[in-house]
Formats: sequence, C-alpha cells, structure tokens
Amino acid sequence: MNLAPYSNWKHTLYKQNHLGNIRVVLSHTSHPGNIGAAARAMKTMGLQHLYLINPRHFPDPQALAMAAGADDLLQNAHVCSTIDEALKDVVLTVGMTARLRDISNEVLTPRDAMPQVVRQAIMQPVALLFGTEMSGLTNEEVSRAQMLVNIPADPEFSSLNLAAAVQVISYELAIAIQGDQPVIQPLSPATHQQVEGYMGHLEKTLHEIGFFTTQNPARMMQRLRRLYARTRLEADEINILRGILSVTTEYNARLKSRYLQEQQKDV
Amino acid sequence: MNLAPYSNWKHTLYKQNHLGNIRVVLSHTSHPGNIGAAARAMKTMGLQHLYLINPRHFPDPQALAMAAGADDLLQNAHVCSTIDEALKDVVLTVGMTARLRDISNEVLTPRDAMPQVVRQAIMQPVALLFGTEMSGLTNEEVSRAQMLVNIPADPEFSSLNLAAAVQVISYELAIAIQGDQPVIQPLSPATHQQVEGYMGHLEKTLHEIGFFTTQNPARMMQRLRRLYARTRLEADEINILRGILSVTTEYNARLKSRYLQEQQKDV
Repeated sequence: MNLAPYSNWKHTLYKQNHLGNIRVVLSHTSHPGNIGAAARAMKTMGLQHLYLINPRHFPDPQALAMAAGADDLLQNAHVCSTIDEALKDVVLTVGMTARLRDISNEVLTPRDAMPQVVRQAIMQPVALLFGTEMSGLTNEEVSRAQMLVNIPADPEFSSLNLAAAVQVISYELAIAIQGDQPVIQPLSPATHQQVEGYMGHLEKTLHEIGFFTTQNPARMMQRLRRLYARTRLEADEINILRGILSVTTEYNARLKSRYLQEQQKDV
Repeated sequence: MNLAPYSNWKHTLYKQNHLGNIRVVLSHTSHPGNIGAAARAMKTMGLQHLYLINPRHFPDPQALAMAAGADDLLQNAHVCSTIDEALKDVVLTVGMTARLRDISNEVLTPRDAMPQVVRQAIMQPVALLFGTEMSGLTNEEVSRAQMLVNIPADPEFSSLNLAAAVQVISYELAIAIQGDQPVIQPLSPATHQQVEGYMGHLEKTLHEIGFFTTQNPARMMQRLRRLYARTRLEADEINILRGILSVTTEYNARLKSRYLQEQQKDV
C-alpha cells in the first residue's frame, strides 16, 4: 500500500483500515475512457482497489489518458472473467442502480448507505458494484448485492456518466469516513463464496425434493436470493441452513430407498 | 424554460424556483469534452443554465459527444468574454477551489454551502464558479466570490476532473433542495401472525425430518428467528418458504403413505 505521510494519524488510519477494504467493481465497461475516469475519481477520494469484470478494452491508452495520474490504480486493477471472481471474500456487495421501478429490494441513497459500508469495511472486504454504461446492472448482478443504492437524479434525465457516479459514491464514502465513529459490529457476515455455496446447495435441494415441479426455478431462486440478501447471512447461520438442507435430503433418500425396496419386494 | 410534466408538484416547483436561479459558470475551459460532460452532470441534477467564459473551443463536436443528451444546455449556453458578464444580476457567487493554503477566506464544504445556496436561489440568481482545468480559479475570480467551497479529497491526489467536480456540487445541490429521503420503501412486511405461522411450520418440519435429533431445538429456533427477524419477511416470501416446507413433508408423507399401503398389501 502506498502511504504518504499525512498531517494527522486519523487520516492514515482511515486509509489503511477503511478504504483498503473497499473495492470498486466495474462490470462489462464499454468505454476504456470511463475506466480511467473512474480510477481518477476513486483516487481523489482515497480509494485504491479497482476490479474489472470483462472490460471491452483494457488496458487501453484512453483509460490511461483519462486516469490523469491514477495510473497506479489501472496497473493494479484486477481483471476478472466472472462476478464471483470479482466478489471473492467480499462480505457486503452494494449494487448501484439507476432504475427504481422494477426493483422490489429496498433502495438506499448514497448518504444513507455509505456509513453502513464504512462500518463494514473497518473489518472486512466490501464491493461497490457498477454495471455497464448502457444498461446498468443485470438481474444476476443485482441478485448478488445485499444493498442497492440509487443516486438521486432528475427523473427527466437521470443517467449519470459511469465515472460521475463513481465520483459521487466515492465522495460520499470519504465524507462518511471522516465523520465516522467506531460503532459496535454485531454481525459477522459470511463471505461471497459462503453465500453462493448456500444458494447452490439450496437450489440443488429444491430440485431434489421436487419443489420446482410447480415453480419456475430461476424466478424462485431470484426471490430467495433477495430474501437472504436482505438478511445478510452470517457464517454460522449458513452452517445451520446447510445442515437443514443436508438432513432434508438424507431423510428423503432414506425414504426413497425404503420405498424402492418395497417395490422390488412386490415384483 | 423546458418544463416537462412531473409526477409531483414538489419537483416542478423546485426546478422552477430554485434551480432556475442557479447558473454554473465555467471559466476558460481548455477541453470541450469537459464542457459537455459538465452539462451532462448538471442536467442529471436538474440544473439548466450554463455560462462559459472564453472557452478555448466552443461549440465543438467533442462537447456534444460528452453531453450525451444534454445538448439543450450546450445550445442555450451563454458564452461570455468577461467574468462580470457571466455574473450579471448574480447576488451570490460561490467559487470552487481545490487549494486551501493560500486562501484566507473561509472555505466551506459542499454540504455546508449548498443549503445556503438554495436559500438564496429561491429569490435571486446565484452562480457556481469553476476555474480552468489546470490551475483552477485565478485570484481575480476568487475575489468575485462571496463564498468559497472545497470538495474534500485525498491530499495525496486531490484534483477532481472538472466535470466530476460539477457532478458532486450539482448532486449536493439537488440533495439540499430535495432533502435526503430514501426514494422508495417497497417492502410490505408480513404480519406477526404470518411470521409466527411460518416459525411454527418450520419448527414442526425440522422435527419431522429429524433435524433436532442432533440439535437443541430451543436454541436452534432462536438462531433461526434472529435470522428471519433481520430480513423482515414479506407475506409473499412466507408463502414461498412455507411452500418449500410443504413440499418437503408432502414428499415424505407421500412416500410414507405409499410405503404403508405397500406394507398393508403385504399383510
């Protein structure tokens, strides 16, 4: 980490403990200039960690030109091929959304959300997830977020440029950190991998017990993801929930095999 | 003024009375792309009036490209040859400054300043004055301002892009006008009875599938209650979760009854 001497320890500390745990994830960015401008915006607010999911052009001279000195963020950028790779070890994913209509999750303002982000980032990795320029986050990406944030804008013309959105969010984050008091941390949330492990196990089990014979699996999983995103599962809780799933399938298997034995006897 | 029908009077009013009196003044801008990006940033927050003091290139196709739909602001932009022309009729000029050292005026944060700007703009014209990209406001320009504002940034890398600065200031202005209310509250939480119905159903099912043979039921139900309390279940979600429980046990019950029928046949 590149730490310059600061005028006060508080600032150094904030940079080490808070911002070091915050990553900005840009998904499927079309224009490399936006990646550079986003890096510049991040760096002005002390953010350092940039993750790129399948950028159309990267590295690219336009990105470098727009970074205007934030070259280090581009050089250290993590280029990922899947969202799961970009969210590895993350315990809180915050999805930025411009659309409000078709989303039934609760959507927070940056001002309400960023203090929560900061509190989480004191201890564990947090991701700020930005979708592609034209259409924003996909439904799949939204489903990976535990929190959704919308930057208030004129309903007549609400599409902020990607880097402008990164600037506003990074700015709110910096303000939240400067005004942040250490607060009790009651939750010890599960990592992205643990949550995905549970969601996979749940889907498999629902198939096994025949739940999807009358339900649309994709839609149903979407609903269940939303429910568990709100609750922000702890690692312990995932153990409990997966324990229930295991017992469910074991029990069914036991019954099934008994039933099959009976059938065979009949034959 | 271009006023579209808004969904609520509050927004129309704010646009007419407050934002109509606010002008963004860009002084000696070097890159036309920045003018376009600034216009876009303004328009996302409902600002309309752009003043340009001696822009190096304007009009320019790059400005139009970066405006991305805020063309009307560019078309209506007032191109001025002196700062006094740009500040005509203005009663409050707010100068944006990146430097703090050599300025003896009081410098406010955007959050402190923008409510004052809004109060003034209810009645009379206000200017938000941005200097040139490389060196910011000149001393002469600073001397025309009654208020100076600095966007907090990392002291190591504090130079925001011009359009990014316009975005942050316009955003703070819009928040100051609208108040920072969460945009939507889409949750329709389940009633106490619905939640208790689910918790009872869950406990019964866990008994049935044998989950409690290795777990303390009371302690485990306490943990599960805590998990679902955090998520604040919706009525729809309770239907889904109870559906899963029903399928789990129905499946078992179906197998059991067939199994029992088979046994009876055997007898």
